[in-house]
Amino acid sequence: MTEKPIRKIGIFKCGNIGTSPLLELLLDELADRQDIKVRTVTTGSKMALEDVEEALPKIFEFNPDLFIVISPNTALPGPAKAREAISSSGKPGVVISDSPAKRVKADIEKQGLGYIIITGDPMIGARKEFLDAIEMALFNSNISKVLAVSGAYRMVHQEIDKAIYAMEAGQMPVLPKLVIDLAAIRDNAELSNPYAKAKAMAAYAMAEKLAEINVQACFMEKESEKYVYLVSCAHEIAQGAAKLADEAREIEKYNDTLVRKPHSKSGKLKIKSKLMQPPVFAEEPQGKTNT
Amino acid sequence: MTEKPIRKIGIFKCGNIGTSPLLELLLDELADRQDIKVRTVTTGSKMALEDVEEALPKIFEFNPDLFIVISPNTALPGPAKAREAISSSGKPGVVISDSPAKRVKADIEKQGLGYIIITGDPMIGARKEFLDAIEMALFNSNISKVLAVSGAYRMVHQEIDKAIYAMEAGQMPVLPKLVIDLAAIRDNAELSNPYAKAKAMAAYAMAEKLAEINVQACFMEKESEKYVYLVSCAHEIAQGAAKLADEAREIEKYNDTLVRKPHSKSGKLKIKSKLMQPPVFAEEPQGKTNT
Amino acid sequence: MTEKPIRKIGIFKCGNIGTSPLLELLLDELADRQDIKVRTVTTGSKMALEDVEEALPKIFEFNPDLFIVISPNTALPGPAKAREAISSSGKPGVVISDSPAKRVKADIEKQGLGYIIITGDPMIGARKEFLDAIEMALFNSNISKVLAVSGAYRMVHQEIDKAIYAMEAGQMPVLPKLVIDLAAIRDNAELSNPYAKAKAMAAYAMAEKLAEINVQACFMEKESEKYVYLVSCAHEIAQGAAKLADEAREIEKYNDTLVRKPHSKSGKLKIKSKLMQPPVFAEEPQGKTNT
Amino acid sequence: MTEKPIRKIGIFKCGNIGTSPLLELLLDELADRQDIKVRTVTTGSKMALEDVEEALPKIFEFNPDLFIVISPNTALPGPAKAREAISSSGKPGVVISDSPAKRVKADIEKQGLGYIIITGDPMIGARKEFLDAIEMALFNSNISKVLAVSGAYRMVHQEIDKAIYAMEAGQMPVLPKLVIDLAAIRDNAELSNPYAKAKAMAAYAMAEKLAEINVQACFMEKESEKYVYLVSCAHEIAQGAAKLADEAREIEKYNDTLVRKPHSKSGKLKIKSKLMQPPVFAEEPQGKTNT
Amino acid sequence: MTEKPIRKIGIFKCGNIGTSPLLELLLDELADRQDIKVRTVTTGSKMALEDVEEALPKIFEFNPDLFIVISPNTALPGPAKAREAISSSGKPGVVISDSPAKRVKADIEKQGLGYIIITGDPMIGARKEFLDAIEMALFNSNISKVLAVSGAYRMVHQEIDKAIYAMEAGQMPVLPKLVIDLAAIRDNAELSNPYAKAKAMAAYAMAEKLAEINVQACFMEKESEKYVYLVSCAHEIAQGAAKLADEAREIEKYNDTLVRKPHSKSGKLKIKSKLMQPPVFAEEPQGKTNT
Amino acid sequence: MTEKPIRKIGIFKCGNIGTSPLLELLLDELADRQDIKVRTVTTGSKMALEDVEEALPKIFEFNPDLFIVISPNTALPGPAKAREAISSSGKPGVVISDSPAKRVKADIEKQGLGYIIITGDPMIGARKEFLDAIEMALFNSNISKVLAVSGAYRMVHQEIDKAIYAMEAGQMPVLPKLVIDLAAIRDNAELSNPYAKAKAMAAYAMAEKLAEINVQACFMEKESEKYVYLVSCAHEIAQGAAKLADEAREIEKYNDTLVRKPHSKSGKLKIKSKLMQPPVFAEEPQGKTNT
Repeated sequence: MTEKPIRKIGIFKCGNIGTSPLLELLLDELADRQDIKVRTVTTGSKMALEDVEEALPKIFEFNPDLFIVISPNTALPGPAKAREAISSSGKPGVVISDSPAKRVKADIEKQGLGYIIITGDPMIGARKEFLDAIEMALFNSNISKVLAVSGAYRMVHQEIDKAIYAMEAGQMPVLPKLVIDLAAIRDNAELSNPYAKAKAMAAYAMAEKLAEINVQACFMEKESEKYVYLVSCAHEIAQGAAKLADEAREIEKYNDTLVRKPHSKSGKLKIKSKLMQPPVFAEEPQGKTNT
Repeated sequence: MTEKPIRKIGIFKCGNIGTSPLLELLLDELADRQDIKVRTVTTGSKMALEDVEEALPKIFEFNPDLFIVISPNTALPGPAKAREAISSSGKPGVVISDSPAKRVKADIEKQGLGYIIITGDPMIGARKEFLDAIEMALFNSNISKVLAVSGAYRMVHQEIDKAIYAMEAGQMPVLPKLVIDLAAIRDNAELSNPYAKAKAMAAYAMAEKLAEINVQACFMEKESEKYVYLVSCAHEIAQGAAKLADEAREIEKYNDTLVRKPHSKSGKLKIKSKLMQPPVFAEEPQGKTNT
Repeated sequence: MTEKPIRKIGIFKCGNIGTSPLLELLLDELADRQDIKVRTVTTGSKMALEDVEEALPKIFEFNPDLFIVISPNTALPGPAKAREAISSSGKPGVVISDSPAKRVKADIEKQGLGYIIITGDPMIGARKEFLDAIEMALFNSNISKVLAVSGAYRMVHQEIDKAIYAMEAGQMPVLPKLVIDLAAIRDNAELSNPYAKAKAMAAYAMAEKLAEINVQACFMEKESEKYVYLVSCAHEIAQGAAKLADEAREIEKYNDTLVRKPHSKSGKLKIKSKLMQPPVFAEEPQGKTNT
Repeated sequence: MTEKPIRKIGIFKCGNIGTSPLLELLLDELADRQDIKVRTVTTGSKMALEDVEEALPKIFEFNPDLFIVISPNTALPGPAKAREAISSSGKPGVVISDSPAKRVKADIEKQGLGYIIITGDPMIGARKEFLDAIEMALFNSNISKVLAVSGAYRMVHQEIDKAIYAMEAGQMPVLPKLVIDLAAIRDNAELSNPYAKAKAMAAYAMAEKLAEINVQACFMEKESEKYVYLVSCAHEIAQGAAKLADEAREIEKYNDTLVRKPHSKSGKLKIKSKLMQPPVFAEEPQGKTNT
Repeated sequence: MTEKPIRKIGIFKCGNIGTSPLLELLLDELADRQDIKVRTVTTGSKMALEDVEEALPKIFEFNPDLFIVISPNTALPGPAKAREAISSSGKPGVVISDSPAKRVKADIEKQGLGYIIITGDPMIGARKEFLDAIEMALFNSNISKVLAVSGAYRMVHQEIDKAIYAMEAGQMPVLPKLVIDLAAIRDNAELSNPYAKAKAMAAYAMAEKLAEINVQACFMEKESEKYVYLVSCAHEIAQGAAKLADEAREIEKYNDTLVRKPHSKSGKLKIKSKLMQPPVFAEEPQGKTNT
Repeated sequence: MTEKPIRKIGIFKCGNIGTSPLLELLLDELADRQDIKVRTVTTGSKMALEDVEEALPKIFEFNPDLFIVISPNTALPGPAKAREAISSSGKPGVVISDSPAKRVKADIEKQGLGYIIITGDPMIGARKEFLDAIEMALFNSNISKVLAVSGAYRMVHQEIDKAIYAMEAGQMPVLPKLVIDLAAIRDNAELSNPYAKAKAMAAYAMAEKLAEINVQACFMEKESEKYVYLVSCAHEIAQGAAKLADEAREIEKYNDTLVRKPHSKSGKLKIKSKLMQPPVFAEEPQGKTNT
């Protein structure tokens, strides 16, 4: 294991979606994975072209083996610039973005990049009458819970893991072409109780719905007495979705069937479901999603 | 406003605490602040000396006006290295860390750096039988909720804001020397209902308690049949604390007294409490914490 | 008051939406209104043309002054038949239906009928692997709670009341042309706390979302292992929406601001908000909705 | 199957109890049952003799094979009139009513009618200071949940089904003589977990208790400052009972043991308990209640 | 204050009701009241005549100024013995008991004793298949919450306080003749929000209902498969009632109107409602109950 | 069984901890145990030396076979006096106390007494601005729930039972030397689902934490605007802990694995876990704790 070269994952974040804050942590949650190291450069909440142009070179200077660029709406100039640069580098790259990215899937494919589009990773209620640092943090907390429990985060890290494993095996990584929509949640969520899955799907569907409401509130409604109610409504849906996600996971805890898949030191996933039993290597840890 | 130079905030993250993932977003939640830009470089969940040594130079290359380094236990070699480098740079710098950092407060002061030590930002239950990417994400979600509602995040961004405002006023920034413990939460939480404050304090105290349990579980208990129960117990406390935090905030919503403090374009905070009224500039937006 | 002729309201129900089961009760919840009597004829859950043709004549035999026909998708042959018959009768008539009815708004107007289209009154998860009598009852219970708290039921009965008042005043009733969508909920919900309104809107938006999922599950997905998850997911959203609706109403109870508008014996609405104070006549009880 | 004659069920509703609004839907929840059609005539919330006398003939004009009359207190003149008419018709008839009907059980039997008396179907808090259309709807929503989960609705439709099956088999239907009290719930609720059953029983018992309180509040207390608290208290019990009912059902969902009994096209019940398995014909679908 | 003689309260407990375990603590919750001392002798859960006869003399040996005897059903031989002895002593005495005590109110009055009969202090589900030490403790916990929030405990200690104050003023104490039923809760509960009061009343009414069920389960049902469900149902109602009680109190906390009435050192009650304000002496602390 | 002498347990309570109010009931929850009788003498909430000196002789006059003294901080003069007297009596005695008692464990052992020290039995928030009789009762209710579900109460009664069984077997009782801390809860809680155990442990750990906060609030903070928040925070933690305890027990109910251990008439414990099955004698009922 120790003789294998360590792969470097270079993550570039501009702007923020619900998958962004924890992305690098999803790949190495125990901080003891010996097959990869992760380096991230971000421009914070801003994602203008000039921000990207200034910050992007730093991630290249880390000389990563695999690039990930994550942002809202990857079609905007800033994220688009990042995609171009990674595409030009000749290194494998994966774009992670939210629902509007569906419109540029073909472009991304032409760029030779993989993509993971998460339809349940919704725009925040970015209106000054409503959003401050605390409201922002709570929204991220709630969305994060939904994406974690519903399986979206699992699909994200397993797709990246799969690319890494391929590189480690000396193969060209098969980059993901994955839209994580409600059907993908249904087909991939690792919840053994069917009502737990239904609740997780419900949470995810709610996140999709609130995305629509926030888009309307932020880009279409002009009167504050209208859009403030809409963004407030959207964040209430987020809170409700987080509660449903919690419920879904509780069901698995009640039945002691909660699946855990820690990364081993080698990078491969182990798996377990009964809390008091140890995790073991699954035979095909990388084969479960995106079929 | 537009003539003012834009200050650049350079954030270096190594390893992860509950305040890390959203830190840069707390400073510019609406992505339209015109007085600062934020650049972040991180080493993901790892924080070994070699990780820091490789990644740290990049944050200097951004040439920030203000440095922030955030990590667990800032006394460890990796974070310590980052502190030294920032201290040597002659630029103002702030260390953000968790409870073990209390032991090196004097060192940090000698280095001329500010510090914010958050006793309610607990160690995660980092045991392979328990922690996988999803459990990690949920823990961060729960802790984030506690830190947001209890006022810890507010204190963090207001301290950084205060330093920025001073720099904008041509003054030497007074760097924070702040331990955010239960007393600080009591004295600073912006919750008008006293029971809401008591609930937020309760959530924070629970986070302190679970930190102790996780330290014991991760560093002292050697038998898995003992430490797995301890980390599970600790994460249950985290979930319970998040619920209490939600309750605290709900009280303010029920009374329509929820304080919001969005950053204006100029970087100054506006403030509001009734949802359907607009935010206005507070007279002394920077004067409320750390007395 | 007693000299006034009693208006007879004839309600024809075929098939069922969430507004159907309680419709006549909404008009006379205390059973002591002296200005109207209500007669209803229904064909139960079925709404085929033959069912309508058999049952419809009975409602005409009651010789009502005002007709209401309520059904799912009013464009289907059965409900369409009922609309035609009422239109031909020359008596005023109002169509109440769910979201698909938006496609025939122009037709309804041409028929000289009023309409109330409730986008948050969703299709049930009508799949035999999932729906039995009990699941059906619970779905109706949950949706009913959402429609009651969010103001949809209030808008429905106030529109009918308004038509009745006009007839009592010897005027031609102005029949409603009302789509109760999320914006209408926002603009009409009688919830004084803005977060209560946001929660009620959230519940309503969730009902809209689950309607889409059930349509897909019932008409598009062909494999039971796919659609059973979808209908289960949809009913979980319904349950979550009912909880949010309950929360919204609790806020008003916590603040003792819950608006109640009982029908007086004369048929006019009284209004009150503090529980221990008596209801009084509002000056313009009919003027609040559908602006 | 298709050669069998279709039986027509004629339902007459005057006034309202918690079982009334969904009654016909309980018999054919999927709207595809080919052995019966249902026709309903109602007088809304009113149940005076004159209302019944005007409306009742219509249900006879449908020429039903089986009559059901449902109302509060069947001993009152209006409902009594309906019973007499059905008794005189010579067709089989079933009376469904609430607790006060226990006093006229012998009369009903003498009339040759069957009865289902539901002691947990409580009187509403019909005081003008408290009850408006929305409060009425929410009360019905809550009670409906209790009656659905506790098995009362199941017993109701199975009794009617049993009568229909007998008629289809060319036999005289054995009409129900059933008082659904707490003991009947205990002995018939289809909840496999014993604590789920205990919770469902608790919800039902609470509905019985609130019935007593509402009777006192509506008929005995004369001062509004006394009866308003009583009806409010009663409706709080209803809400609490609905929550307990939800909990009971959640237990079955957590264990994936929730019994579902959809009507097949032939009218016979299928049965299933694991969500992802199909329903099958039970050997004796009609044999489970009223022993 | 210090010159006043200290009154000694002698409490005799045999068997247990929900008011028993905390009774002496209710009188001196801060342990610094200087006008009284309390001595208690109990026979534990047993209340047979022989237990009472052995233990009762001890309480007389303390030579109390005021006697309290608390037990289930005060008509049973053991408690009756205690009443007789106290009555014969010539000292003032108060009987506290549960609902069956209503049958011997006249006897108690003849004995010259006061009484407080608490209809919402229910019999426990004392069946060996169900009740163990833990279930017993939880039942007491839940009932205690109901009695505390609904005002029953307040009425109890205020009645005893009133008797003490009278003795301190050199007067004959007016001993209570109080049945704490639902009407008394309504008229005395110190909850300023009317819905909080309604919820507290609901909790109390539920306790009354479960008392009936437990009496049936313990004394009338003979088959374990029947009575186990009944006692389980009764304890679920207790848990539900405790939740409603918690909700009622939360409303007062949300509004910062929670009334607190600590005993001062002198024994007189102070009163406060806003949490952050100090308690003050009410003008007539003893005048609020039992009107 | 009936020939065996009945052992008399003499309990002396001074002051109050969460284990005090129900202690004697834990030993004989069904009131039909034929091997023991229990007599208790208490001084109420007060525990000064003079209170103990006056009341203590009475418990000796009952001539018990086994003494139990329970109080807060057993090192204080009052409780210490009781320990001395029991130690001098030559009869076996057990001290039950809270966390501060750990400091005098050696003293207790020297006195020849057993001890049970319950670290999760916290000091109450005894500040006059906060604590009144009702708040006191609710705190005890919440703590009682935590101690019951987490297994602390079970360990307490089983230790006493074990001593009694030894005496009945003609042996010298092995008196407990037991500190019930978080590790003891982990190792002894009778919860079969591991997440239930984790939740129960979480509740217990929270009780430990709030104990620290109340000590600080009652003995160290001098300003009411500081300590009122602390005691309020501590009682919120208590309420949160009770909810977690309830959750833990619900898990066992959901799985029908809830362990019940009723005392048989002989005093030996029976055991059961499925609700609808009878309890049976365990082979070694006394062998489970304090290993």
